[in-house]
Amino acid sequence: MKMSRKVFRDLCSLEDAFSTLEENWRPEALSTERVPITDSVGRVLANDIHSAIDVPGFDRAAMDGFAVRAEDTFTADEQHPVQLRVLGRVDAGDAADHLVSIGDAVEVATGAPVPRGANAVVMVEFTKSTSNGVAIYKPVTPGENIAGAGTDIAAGELLLRKLQKLTSRDIGLLAGIGLEQVEVYRKPRVTVFSSGNELIAQGQPLAFAKLYDINGPTLLASILDCGGDPSFMGVLPDDYSILKSRIESALASADIVLTSGSTSSGPGDMIYRVVDELGEPGVLVHGLTLKPGKPALIGLVRGKPIFGLPGYPTSALMIFHILVAPFIRRLGNMSDVEPTKVSASSPMKFSKARGRRELVPVQIITQPNNKLLAYPMQSGSGAVSSFSMADGFADIPETQEFIDEGEELEIELFGKELVLPSLVAIGSHCIGIDIAFALLRRADSRFLGRTINVGSTGGFHAVQRGEADLAGVHLLDEKTGEYNTPFVRFFHLENSAVLVRGYNREQGLMVKPGNPAAIKSIEDVVKSRVRFVNRNRGSGTRLLIDKHFRELALNEDISTITSRVDGYGYEVKSHSAVAAAIKNDRADVGYGIRTAAVLAGLDFVKTDDERYDFLIPRSRLAKPSVKAFLDLLRSSVFTEDLHKKAPGLKTTNETGTQIPIA
Amino acid sequence: MKMSRKVFRDLCSLEDAFSTLEENWRPEALSTERVPITDSVGRVLANDIHSAIDVPGFDRAAMDGFAVRAEDTFTADEQHPVQLRVLGRVDAGDAADHLVSIGDAVEVATGAPVPRGANAVVMVEFTKSTSNGVAIYKPVTPGENIAGAGTDIAAGELLLRKLQKLTSRDIGLLAGIGLEQVEVYRKPRVTVFSSGNELIAQGQPLAFAKLYDINGPTLLASILDCGGDPSFMGVLPDDYSILKSRIESALASADIVLTSGSTSSGPGDMIYRVVDELGEPGVLVHGLTLKPGKPALIGLVRGKPIFGLPGYPTSALMIFHILVAPFIRRLGNMSDVEPTKVSASSPMKFSKARGRRELVPVQIITQPNNKLLAYPMQSGSGAVSSFSMADGFADIPETQEFIDEGEELEIELFGKELVLPSLVAIGSHCIGIDIAFALLRRADSRFLGRTINVGSTGGFHAVQRGEADLAGVHLLDEKTGEYNTPFVRFFHLENSAVLVRGYNREQGLMVKPGNPAAIKSIEDVVKSRVRFVNRNRGSGTRLLIDKHFRELALNEDISTITSRVDGYGYEVKSHSAVAAAIKNDRADVGYGIRTAAVLAGLDFVKTDDERYDFLIPRSRLAKPSVKAFLDLLRSSVFTEDLHKKAPGLKTTNETGTQIPIA
Repeated sequence: MKMSRKVFRDLCSLEDAFSTLEENWRPEALSTERVPITDSVGRVLANDIHSAIDVPGFDRAAMDGFAVRAEDTFTADEQHPVQLRVLGRVDAGDAADHLVSIGDAVEVATGAPVPRGANAVVMVEFTKSTSNGVAIYKPVTPGENIAGAGTDIAAGELLLRKLQKLTSRDIGLLAGIGLEQVEVYRKPRVTVFSSGNELIAQGQPLAFAKLYDINGPTLLASILDCGGDPSFMGVLPDDYSILKSRIESALASADIVLTSGSTSSGPGDMIYRVVDELGEPGVLVHGLTLKPGKPALIGLVRGKPIFGLPGYPTSALMIFHILVAPFIRRLGNMSDVEPTKVSASSPMKFSKARGRRELVPVQIITQPNNKLLAYPMQSGSGAVSSFSMADGFADIPETQEFIDEGEELEIELFGKELVLPSLVAIGSHCIGIDIAFALLRRADSRFLGRTINVGSTGGFHAVQRGEADLAGVHLLDEKTGEYNTPFVRFFHLENSAVLVRGYNREQGLMVKPGNPAAIKSIEDVVKSRVRFVNRNRGSGTRLLIDKHFRELALNEDISTITSRVDGYGYEVKSHSAVAAAIKNDRADVGYGIRTAAVLAGLDFVKTDDERYDFLIPRSRLAKPSVKAFLDLLRSSVFTEDLHKKAPGLKTTNETGTQIPIA
Repeated sequence: MKMSRKVFRDLCSLEDAFSTLEENWRPEALSTERVPITDSVGRVLANDIHSAIDVPGFDRAAMDGFAVRAEDTFTADEQHPVQLRVLGRVDAGDAADHLVSIGDAVEVATGAPVPRGANAVVMVEFTKSTSNGVAIYKPVTPGENIAGAGTDIAAGELLLRKLQKLTSRDIGLLAGIGLEQVEVYRKPRVTVFSSGNELIAQGQPLAFAKLYDINGPTLLASILDCGGDPSFMGVLPDDYSILKSRIESALASADIVLTSGSTSSGPGDMIYRVVDELGEPGVLVHGLTLKPGKPALIGLVRGKPIFGLPGYPTSALMIFHILVAPFIRRLGNMSDVEPTKVSASSPMKFSKARGRRELVPVQIITQPNNKLLAYPMQSGSGAVSSFSMADGFADIPETQEFIDEGEELEIELFGKELVLPSLVAIGSHCIGIDIAFALLRRADSRFLGRTINVGSTGGFHAVQRGEADLAGVHLLDEKTGEYNTPFVRFFHLENSAVLVRGYNREQGLMVKPGNPAAIKSIEDVVKSRVRFVNRNRGSGTRLLIDKHFRELALNEDISTITSRVDGYGYEVKSHSAVAAAIKNDRADVGYGIRTAAVLAGLDFVKTDDERYDFLIPRSRLAKPSVKAFLDLLRSSVFTEDLHKKAPGLKTTNETGTQIPIA
């Protein structure tokens, strides 16, 4: 029972996985193809390039002036010019047929061929036209101001080496020796498919229980990025015979086959069996001692590697970069291309998987000193929204137990370039920030804003750690009834940050159109046992929600009330997500701002006025993008756009001014 | 006389050129196009992207386990499991229709939809199958282990912003919400042509006085690199009506027109006139106070900018990067994309153009501490060979008079990535190094060698300054008759470098096949007045040549002899260039190694045996690529390849061993 033997084999380290594949794999050399030189940047040369011609192909005047016999000029000086007869003029590109003998000169332009007999060019600055010729005021030595034939490139010279990756300057070199086409290795063909019964392809209608496939398109883009030639086989169901026949046909043309999903050893997963039964040696590695990577698979059938990646997008992309990309580059003779890495420090201490090497996806932001910070992100959640914010990943060794605050990490980027935002807002999300960012971008096309939604409390922490340019906050202090100001003191930010007045918002209950459950207050929510949708802990709105529930509970524990609320445990992360839950009948009521309710077509029962302000580190006040943001807050453009697009958000005379902290 | 007014206007600074164009240019917004998401990496979004769906679209099990009503589990613990009836099982992708009531459970796989009635998932680890159902050993709270519908992305949520440049993760996000295509701005169309009567296109036969056009293909590749959509109009002659009609037709479809060559104000140059007469405002700027850039031209006709670049390839490429690329990016809404820059220090002091801003092309190499060195290169020479080695350029302000040794320069790269060589040989060129580098690359596909040919003396200087990993040298000390060793002392390198024995070479006179001039010695060269081809000053071979001439001159000055040698001033820079000069009948005789003569099919009259050795900084001896090079020198593979491909080069028992310096 070969199969079961392999199913239960030990997990394998990444190094062992590499060497196991290397030992078994005998890649054939890629075939070559001829491409126009203008399409060859980044391609790998398949041959040494020797020049078939001399460049220049003739003795070329390097200056405007007069082609002469140097010997005729030896006695010339400022006082005693030499008089020469001028036979004519030659321009660049002209093949005029003069013969320069003793006492002769020919006027030449830069780039013109030097006429026979002449062996030097006198620069025009040292000559004067005369009625019967030219006067030469300075002697020249033989060869002076002439670029001899073949002095730049000699016929037969080795110019570019086989296996070299071509640059735009190499294209110039190939052009200079007259080549229209160049022979390069073809790109490795990587055939990709996604598998899983829950997946459907883009463009299909979204049936219940289905998700659109994310890995297929993302991997195609990533394969292109690392020099491969991707093709997509589509989304395949977990069906043994379909998978087997499709992989079999892929093996006929692909150099590498790549799958994602369906690689764990649960009952519905069968890639493993398919790969093993397609041919020897079949599955080589099933599971890596690497987080994430337990479900990763490496197989080899008919000399072609088959890689099985985890289903979660962030995991799949990281395993692709660390495991598959090096083989694509190797096969394409691009092993000398290194992935782009940057150094960034961790803004916080965090622990990692014990005793396992771990790949941690991170989001990168800049600090004012231009140093980079790498925020760890969750990879195992399968959330697309967090995946889309990851810039790259850190590779943390098995022996390390945690990452310390301030520790320098080497981050491998998912893309070739790191595109850094001009302004980073971390904290509570508000559509007002989206409006402001869109206006800033309209005013300056270089502006690139990024929002990280972690709630108001998270915003205070982010400013405390110096990570954010600004934080949108709306935290109510129950004791004083004051918004935000008391928390500046609570977080000891009086000296290091300022609070800037934002705008007013209306908080309340979002309900279905027409308010069918007739909910007028938080009490109705509890009494009528409608389905509630809650907000994430740490958000300002959640604090407000819990304040209302606590008031109902009087002196009892809040859970005496909340345990009676159907959906108190159902937490979503934004106002619009609350609105969406009600609109799509997953809940009947939830808390949020009027703006979100109105934009979603819901009814709104106002319970509170609140202040949405901006907390800004003092060190960022001089940053141009922060200045531009503050100027915008105070502008009528912003007030008008807010009025038009965000019902319920209102600026005041104080908007954009600093709030004194007592 | 509008034209002459403009011809004589003052040169203009780059800043003024930018603002002049900005003031006059009212670019229309680019039209948009729909592209498949997998082709959209790097493209610029033309619309905000809001999600039309919730992700997930259903309440999704986040763990393998049992979907339950949380209320049913509140009393469960290790001692008192709760027994539930199992209604069935739901896998990912299944839309099974269970209703979970009091006392019910449904087995669920990760990713499966949570059945109606259930509000939490108990992880399988805390359950045990029983004969009549499942035992639950741990309570769950409502919502636990469920990713609620819309919690990742809520319908209506703003996901990506207009004008954002798409990354592979953004592709994943677009895929996740089911989009097959996305609307992006089309790339700016840049129409390119080259002009000059001396230019011909690749693939054409090379007529006398002509050169293959280099700028066209190089600019096409560079436009692609910075996000434009290039098209090539070909090489146009300096003919007023042809230029005018071709530019006129280009203006109909292009967003930007780019020319190179024919922009100086000499009599044969007419781009200037053509642009000015095509329409208002015509030529805006003619000539920049920037070196190189005097012949640069900026025009505006029918709202389309026309840029005229210098003819020399390095100059054209630098002016393209500093002047044109920013406008392509701006037009394509990619102003936030910065060109790739690296910091590198100057290995030497060098002066720049006085009172003019100067762009200095540089070649970049690494030092052992991973710091980068930027070697200045000549841009004005028009040499393709040096152009092809330039990695980027430094932008030196007008106020600076020179670059100091060790000064940090910011280098803008010509390409997006800097591909750094593993091993840098600076010094005398020899085909033996080419053979060694090819063998090293064959053994390790990551190996990338680079040779900079500056002659033996230049090699000693490069090692002295710590720039080279190794220098091939063959310098004869006339006093002692010794090769290389005395110069190690002369350059004070005894402690900082080692000399490694290379191989023997035969130097002598290369002559035409059959030796028609019957040249047997240097004396014959002088006496028979044949045409000579010399080597560049500083090369080991030139020292040898001058030694022979000096011996003939006895106690007189060398010029008493060399002034009688036709072609003594005709200097070429390599053995193969000497061979090419003779083969192509530009000379009858020259000095060089037997290898070059044999490979070119020439006859060879040996005059000297010489030692070609390698000077290596001690600090580089531990570098893996240097070690590999030394191992290779001592290998039989190298000896055999040398024997096969390089007649006249011979290794000895000492090859690859250090030569003691007394």
